[in-house]
Amino acid sequence: MRQAIGVIDSGVGGLTVARELMRQLPNEQLIYLGDTKRCPYGPRSKEEVVAFTWQMVNHLLEKNIKLLVVACNTATAFTLEQLQQQLDIPVIGVIQPGARAAIKVSKNKRIGVIGTEGTISSEAYTKALHYIDKSIVVKGLACPAFVPMVEDGILEGEVAEETVKNSLHPLKVNNGIDTLILGCTHYPLIRHLIQKEMGLNIQVICSGEETAREVSLILAYQDLTYQGEEKPNHEFYSTGDLDKFERVANVWFEEPIQYLKPVIID
Amino acid sequence: MRQAIGVIDSGVGGLTVARELMRQLPNEQLIYLGDTKRCPYGPRSKEEVVAFTWQMVNHLLEKNIKLLVVACNTATAFTLEQLQQQLDIPVIGVIQPGARAAIKVSKNKRIGVIGTEGTISSEAYTKALHYIDKSIVVKGLACPAFVPMVEDGILEGEVAEETVKNSLHPLKVNNGIDTLILGCTHYPLIRHLIQKEMGLNIQVICSGEETAREVSLILAYQDLTYQGEEKPNHEFYSTGDLDKFERVANVWFEEPIQYLKPVIID
Repeated sequence: MRQAIGVIDSGVGGLTVARELMRQLPNEQLIYLGDTKRCPYGPRSKEEVVAFTWQMVNHLLEKNIKLLVVACNTATAFTLEQLQQQLDIPVIGVIQPGARAAIKVSKNKRIGVIGTEGTISSEAYTKALHYIDKSIVVKGLACPAFVPMVEDGILEGEVAEETVKNSLHPLKVNNGIDTLILGCTHYPLIRHLIQKEMGLNIQVICSGEETAREVSLILAYQDLTYQGEEKPNHEFYSTGDLDKFERVANVWFEEPIQYLKPVIID
Repeated sequence: MRQAIGVIDSGVGGLTVARELMRQLPNEQLIYLGDTKRCPYGPRSKEEVVAFTWQMVNHLLEKNIKLLVVACNTATAFTLEQLQQQLDIPVIGVIQPGARAAIKVSKNKRIGVIGTEGTISSEAYTKALHYIDKSIVVKGLACPAFVPMVEDGILEGEVAEETVKNSLHPLKVNNGIDTLILGCTHYPLIRHLIQKEMGLNIQVICSGEETAREVSLILAYQDLTYQGEEKPNHEFYSTGDLDKFERVANVWFEEPIQYLKPVIID
């Protein structure tokens, strides 16, 4: 029985990570679980995020996953360490891969991070960067307008451009960063606008791309890469409104998602 | 007693990998061993490469290293699997990180690889890419003129540009690659010439940068990242001519190498 990669998220944002996993690891099977009923996690207490995350994890463990991706910045900040300690399978979050990629490309060690208010105030990226190199200067900026805009499908046009311009303004003034981490799984959908606003001299890092890259390494390192000939049949589960989930997924993905099911966890 | 990262290479080429390790992991201590007396490994038999590599590995194991980097494409192709199976510490080669990075950035799944004749004819990069995705089209090209040129310090000027142009010509004709892996540790020194010749639409992947990135992940994954306050004291050992080693190192590194010693292994 082939084993899948489990992907959990507070809602739909983690679909950008799933999309990258499907692109970079086209033979691997995914089981995605989005807690759309209780999202967003950003404003919730640590206790709630931990409890909800464990419910999702336990649900996926029953499906015999071989590796878990926590495709949510808030859940990664609050639960990664305990999941890594307590589970027998590898657990990958979305924060550390972005941090390592930024260290790779930054020449001046001045790195910007944008994300939700929860992610930025948690300083999770700063901790991940300083875990490797304490001399790195980190400039964090919350961009609370981006998630609602992306979920409403506003990815182009004047409103989107103005929102990006106004939100990023504080990062453009006198900070000298040469690298910017998109510290929220929704932001890759407006990467083109962010890159345009910041200028081509700024290297933009997408956590989803980097997370998929690191999943690829850990699968190989643990000898878990699928080497059979069967095509994957991905499964997508949502705790809440399936219509919205499907609508967003069909805009974000190049092809419609194949198999979407409701799931009740509590 | 703090543990170092061990780096082995057939000679001086792996210094580009060491340089990236020092840049991306500035707190980590390195012990580098270059087999300059017996390099290059490219034209040697598999049996010889395996035997020489094990001699170097055993030498570094006595120094209680925590992770081993095989910073040589030929040695990676011939020994990585057995080293990973037989050693108790993590072992990272230079081929797989470049392959994973190429998969991350390539949009059209047509990937070029340049390297020594040994590396290209071993098809090690093709195997590493197809391990993950068999649909990738790989275009390999041996560039035997590059290593002697780089070791002679010819990194700029008309001769260097002509050599790069002539060597890369076969890759520029009708193959449609969008990504090029520098599959030799010497090539990052002429990356600027290669990028200029191939054009800015081609993404150039340096194995050294990608290897350091993956070392960073594996250290974190195994909880081996150095978290103390002591500055690293790197050690460099060479089985052969120290003068040449030092001369090359001082051109390649931004600051002179601190501690270079001869070593006899046989």
